[in-house]
Amino acid sequence: MTLTDTQTTPVPADLPADLLDLDARDPLAHKRAEFLLPAGVVYLDGNSLGPLHRSVPERIERVLRGEWGEGLIRSWTANAEAALDWMALPDRVAAKIARLIGARPHEVAVGDSTSVNLFKALAAALALVPDRRVILTDADNFPTDLYVAQGLNALLGGRYELRRVPNTEIAAHLSLEIAVTLLTEVDYRTGRRLDLAGLSAQAREHGALTVWDLAHSAGAFEVDLNGAGADFAVGCGYKYLNGGPGAPAFLFVAERHHAGAPVALSGWMGHADPFEMARDFVPAPGARRFVPGTPQVLSLSALDAALDAFEGVEMAELRAKSLSLTDTFIGLMEPLCAAHGLMLVTPRAHAQRGSQVSYRAPDAQAVMRRLVERGVIGDFRTPDILRFGFTPLYHSHADVWRAVQGIRAVLEGQTP
Amino acid sequence: MTLTDTQTTPVPADLPADLLDLDARDPLAHKRAEFLLPAGVVYLDGNSLGPLHRSVPERIERVLRGEWGEGLIRSWTANAEAALDWMALPDRVAAKIARLIGARPHEVAVGDSTSVNLFKALAAALALVPDRRVILTDADNFPTDLYVAQGLNALLGGRYELRRVPNTEIAAHLSLEIAVTLLTEVDYRTGRRLDLAGLSAQAREHGALTVWDLAHSAGAFEVDLNGAGADFAVGCGYKYLNGGPGAPAFLFVAERHHAGAPVALSGWMGHADPFEMARDFVPAPGARRFVPGTPQVLSLSALDAALDAFEGVEMAELRAKSLSLTDTFIGLMEPLCAAHGLMLVTPRAHAQRGSQVSYRAPDAQAVMRRLVERGVIGDFRTPDILRFGFTPLYHSHADVWRAVQGIRAVLEGQTP
Repeated sequence: MTLTDTQTTPVPADLPADLLDLDARDPLAHKRAEFLLPAGVVYLDGNSLGPLHRSVPERIERVLRGEWGEGLIRSWTANAEAALDWMALPDRVAAKIARLIGARPHEVAVGDSTSVNLFKALAAALALVPDRRVILTDADNFPTDLYVAQGLNALLGGRYELRRVPNTEIAAHLSLEIAVTLLTEVDYRTGRRLDLAGLSAQAREHGALTVWDLAHSAGAFEVDLNGAGADFAVGCGYKYLNGGPGAPAFLFVAERHHAGAPVALSGWMGHADPFEMARDFVPAPGARRFVPGTPQVLSLSALDAALDAFEGVEMAELRAKSLSLTDTFIGLMEPLCAAHGLMLVTPRAHAQRGSQVSYRAPDAQAVMRRLVERGVIGDFRTPDILRFGFTPLYHSHADVWRAVQGIRAVLEGQTP
Repeated sequence: MTLTDTQTTPVPADLPADLLDLDARDPLAHKRAEFLLPAGVVYLDGNSLGPLHRSVPERIERVLRGEWGEGLIRSWTANAEAALDWMALPDRVAAKIARLIGARPHEVAVGDSTSVNLFKALAAALALVPDRRVILTDADNFPTDLYVAQGLNALLGGRYELRRVPNTEIAAHLSLEIAVTLLTEVDYRTGRRLDLAGLSAQAREHGALTVWDLAHSAGAFEVDLNGAGADFAVGCGYKYLNGGPGAPAFLFVAERHHAGAPVALSGWMGHADPFEMARDFVPAPGARRFVPGTPQVLSLSALDAALDAFEGVEMAELRAKSLSLTDTFIGLMEPLCAAHGLMLVTPRAHAQRGSQVSYRAPDAQAVMRRLVERGVIGDFRTPDILRFGFTPLYHSHADVWRAVQGIRAVLEGQTP
């Protein structure tokens, strides 16, 4: 298997005219050529690991041999005027992400993992609501969100209650007891999208702060954190942002909290003047104070290059195409669901849908294994979920068609 | 400037015979060719950022185009039998580091930054000594160590006292009040090396736990954490381990603490079965439980490749050469110190010396700037320190000679 120019993938001969037409009118069709994908694969797992953007290998080669190999320690500050210094690299990446999530650049810090950023966000948020003791979360939240809350709570002497309720009932559980809501906008299993703006407003009315996990949102559709009045958010660099495996994550801290939110994980790179080597921590301006250690230059450079895929992309256009792709998929899958006992668990209502489609299915794990062998790469999620991610930057309606043909073949027991 | 095969660097015509002889008998001389360094540079800053190991660019190219580009999500588990799966990559890197620091592989976790690992280590150590309230540290400890303690203490309600004393007086300040000693084995400014084994034993006698920062130790000389009975340690991937800018750091947790030490930063990748997606955190076996988020594959792969430089290297041999290099440097610098007002701040006693040599110097910042312009790359450290790191894997005594010639020229005001 070799990496291929995805533009050359032939259009299936049996592609229905309406799908052919949708692809012909796709304003994002030109972005597809920016990604390197293996030939013969329909990759519906960009919501777990985004594919390789064409600009990344070249950028990394330059970072390795040029900036690291030749520049060595000098590269931390060299070529700052050309925006090539490593010191400001996290800020440059933060600015690119800020545009995608409705934040101002200085409200976003890039570095560390999503889990570590969740810890920072939750610790800061809880400190800002010192008289309350309940963290309200989704009972089926992504595990790391629950574990981070458990670990932090144990560290703080177990004085909080982690109240886990179904994500359809969050609003009903808001009360004056709630210190912080810890919610993932899009459920990693069902693809259900919560009402970020509405829930943020309702939390605010109850005096609670919001910590949003945007793992399946950032880069998937337009997010407007400041429009929603969100307090804190975190997100992942390696899913829809295509930063590569284990890419640095991001943390959003609304400007109004910069002065008051304590920095629990305080380190030298979050200091106002790291090289002053002062004995006491004085936070850097803006959200950058929340990343304590040395920037992960290799991984950050890959993420920085990959984010150029969003240059010139209107997020509303991205969202429209995402909905068109998932609508098409849901429609084409309907007869297969009826015949093979699959149950759609992703909401049909657009407002409640992320950029993935999931089904409960008999033998889901075995079905996904056979799909992957056939080159239709989605995800199995325990206990019985088939999950398919759609990414408008590199998927066409023809890909949706190909995927459904592959799924049909597997469900009907055809050998590849 | 281009990267060069360092083997081809010509021997200076005026190199004294004794230095020529030391290089001729150097059992590590063959390692030099494994590193790519810019022509015309004497790089004495590997204690800040290690140089590019020859194996790294090729490895990263394979990870980018092969494992990420073609393998995509499958690479998390693919080729596990050939030790190429991403899931176990942190464990493979941990095993390589364990050998260098006197630890067992399952006592080392790799990932996150040094600062974040310090936070985890200190949080765990304090929880194990619940009835004490003093953290004893070096007043001139590296800033991040102090800031991490400050941030954690504030998070815990300020119930600890951070007692900062000169690092020559640590033993005298040990008492039954001390919960944890937070010490860096080698002082980043002076290069003074503390007695890790002795202080660990004395701390233990007083019922205190030890958290050691090995930033300037790991890869610089043999460290024997288990021999010393150390409790926790952290270290840096981008200094003497040559993992690249912002490389993942490591955390050592002695096996006897695995069952009892709480995991404050608990996340899905530290779970015993991450893909079970369980609602409650159950720690993975061994130290791996302490890294919550997704492994940083690009950066980890660079570190993994770079660590092969230590394959077959006897750490005692490395240490002997390090001392020979620093002795030679100190000796050659003596007349310059006398003539130009430099004061050696690195101990002459071998047992008290790391792998760097530092001087207090008038106009140190300007002197270092001119040295760097001349191709002798060391570090300025506030307020008046010139710092030169020696790394036996790629330095020769001829490099020491070249460096001193460069320093002489700068001190005597010659233009390059």
